[in-house]
Amino acid sequence: MTGTPEPFTADDHRARMQRAARAAEEAGLAGVLVAPGPDLVWLTGYAPPAATERLTLLVLAAGQDPVLVVPTLEAPDAEKAVGAPALRLRDWTDGKDPYSATAPLLDASGRYGVSDNAWALHLLGLQKELPGTSYVSLSEGLPMLRAVKDSAELERLAAAGAAADATYEEILKVAFAGRRESDVAGDLADLLRHFGHEQVDFTVVGSGPNGASPHHEAGSRVIEHGDTVVLDFGGLKHGYGSDTSRTVHVGEPDAEEQRVHDIVRAAQQAACEAVRPGIACQDVDRVARAHITEAGYGDRFIHRTGHGIGVTTHEPPYMIEGEEQPLVPGMCFSVEPGIYLPGRFGVRIEDIVTVTEDGGRRLNETPREMAVVN
Amino acid sequence: MTGTPEPFTADDHRARMQRAARAAEEAGLAGVLVAPGPDLVWLTGYAPPAATERLTLLVLAAGQDPVLVVPTLEAPDAEKAVGAPALRLRDWTDGKDPYSATAPLLDASGRYGVSDNAWALHLLGLQKELPGTSYVSLSEGLPMLRAVKDSAELERLAAAGAAADATYEEILKVAFAGRRESDVAGDLADLLRHFGHEQVDFTVVGSGPNGASPHHEAGSRVIEHGDTVVLDFGGLKHGYGSDTSRTVHVGEPDAEEQRVHDIVRAAQQAACEAVRPGIACQDVDRVARAHITEAGYGDRFIHRTGHGIGVTTHEPPYMIEGEEQPLVPGMCFSVEPGIYLPGRFGVRIEDIVTVTEDGGRRLNETPREMAVVN
Repeated sequence: MTGTPEPFTADDHRARMQRAARAAEEAGLAGVLVAPGPDLVWLTGYAPPAATERLTLLVLAAGQDPVLVVPTLEAPDAEKAVGAPALRLRDWTDGKDPYSATAPLLDASGRYGVSDNAWALHLLGLQKELPGTSYVSLSEGLPMLRAVKDSAELERLAAAGAAADATYEEILKVAFAGRRESDVAGDLADLLRHFGHEQVDFTVVGSGPNGASPHHEAGSRVIEHGDTVVLDFGGLKHGYGSDTSRTVHVGEPDAEEQRVHDIVRAAQQAACEAVRPGIACQDVDRVARAHITEAGYGDRFIHRTGHGIGVTTHEPPYMIEGEEQPLVPGMCFSVEPGIYLPGRFGVRIEDIVTVTEDGGRRLNETPREMAVVN
Repeated sequence: MTGTPEPFTADDHRARMQRAARAAEEAGLAGVLVAPGPDLVWLTGYAPPAATERLTLLVLAAGQDPVLVVPTLEAPDAEKAVGAPALRLRDWTDGKDPYSATAPLLDASGRYGVSDNAWALHLLGLQKELPGTSYVSLSEGLPMLRAVKDSAELERLAAAGAAADATYEEILKVAFAGRRESDVAGDLADLLRHFGHEQVDFTVVGSGPNGASPHHEAGSRVIEHGDTVVLDFGGLKHGYGSDTSRTVHVGEPDAEEQRVHDIVRAAQQAACEAVRPGIACQDVDRVARAHITEAGYGDRFIHRTGHGIGVTTHEPPYMIEGEEQPLVPGMCFSVEPGIYLPGRFGVRIEDIVTVTEDGGRRLNETPREMAVVN
């Protein structure tokens, strides 16, 4: 385990905000509008107590100081954000219209990138107040805004990955047979926290037929001897994400279980080896999918191959057919093919991979062979 | 403490969905589009593992069966929702366009109510796919959709209120002086859970000058003898919300602290007594505000008087100037005036109140006088 990383500073946040404003200008946008959530945390270090119906919005535009629109009663919290010295606060009071308070900060005929997770309530408010403006989601307009990680971010992602690996090594020692999925999921959450995660986002334990539903979390099913069990877990450590999957077996697998696992493992290996600067995101998906399709399970690989990771466990870039974005050194994403046999079992193997000049480098290092558990 | 209430059934959810579709029609809307979150939980009982960039959307329209658009890999979860028998699932697969999959369910020139918290990403996707459609937030278009609670909901809200009251009674017994705000906040969270909350939403402990920031949560400040301390806590029990505030004093208050507390208490009392069917929401705010203004602190009451509560701890109707919605029996909301003296201290007193034919009935019953703590 690594120690605590150097905290980000107001200068770090200032640089990110400037980068975002410049990227918007280059993309032909008038600016960027950022709602509470991961974009705002990344840009300013500010996380309001909760995302609510009260408008909080960061307005970034090239040649303009960053302004954070906040409800008056949350202004004292916003002032304490790490990035606050790099921005100006503009507060609005209950009973006033937050959209008319925001309007003077915007170009009335501008096209703005807006956080994917901004509330429809607020977008509709702005569209009504400034009918000449238009909007595009940040994932469409500036999808790569947070995608390329700097060294301080990579350090955090590596630490999160190492903590997830330590979690996996420990979970192999617990009892599976005779316990509920939710019990093992609880162990995973405890271990992630033990190894330094401040937030656990998911602890999938998909045993037997439940493993065939890729997003099954963990239920009351009692795990049995002979079950294939998909484990997929992650969260945030020092503000950056982990996400790894391994598929284990309670006792020795039968020939088909082993064969399906081998196919997924080879597909995952091939996709990781394909990672290098310049290839398109969709190529990573195609490599994994081709392998599984050739093995006869193409219609049972029912999700994309991967997603980016950073201050969230789920963000661009997506390794999916149609995504032509080229890979750039510093990008981090999951590579997680799977095969799902309804009513029977599922297999998924997942590592976080970062793009280097020389190719892909995995941030998860635990064995990918199907471990036998008790 | 009350026991576990009868669970809601598919029929309960069917009735709510029919009510919503009818209300939309009466409001001149083509239908209602519901994103993951409290509206979806209330209507269908379904809460996806997480709100993500993958579209999940309930489409309700009069004369049309409810349809839930879901990602294929989450369909097995959706099928298990309590309300699933009352709706049809339409799944879409990674790599396909979820907006073109949704379009055939919509009137291409219709005006739709959309959940406040639907992601901008999804609204923009629909606006692009169907440029002839228009949208209004549910809080503007159908603000009262969840506002009037039935008896099963009132039972839950009363139980949550009783649990919050029990929490307050216990917190008066703990030590305040010499401990951090965050320690007392931890006690509040533990107590809420002990008294049956499955979710804690906020545990505000605003001591001394921190109490002057209404949304200050709880920090590292060590509480001192002589501090005024604002406590504001709540969460969900059996899926329904609690939210109550009391302001206590470590040792005996001085004359000004006592006077400010008396003013807030009288304002809160007057506002609660004003509650009755037919008066406007803004009248509740006006009564509280007039009292505080007459006492000379009008400019230090810097937020609205209250907000609705139900499957969330923060929802319409809002007790705020400009809200002309008349009160209706079954509505539940907070009445929480406050006075905030920057750099010094704050006072807030809050109860949940439900509207009955005869007037307001409080769901919080603990003494509102300023308690002296240690």
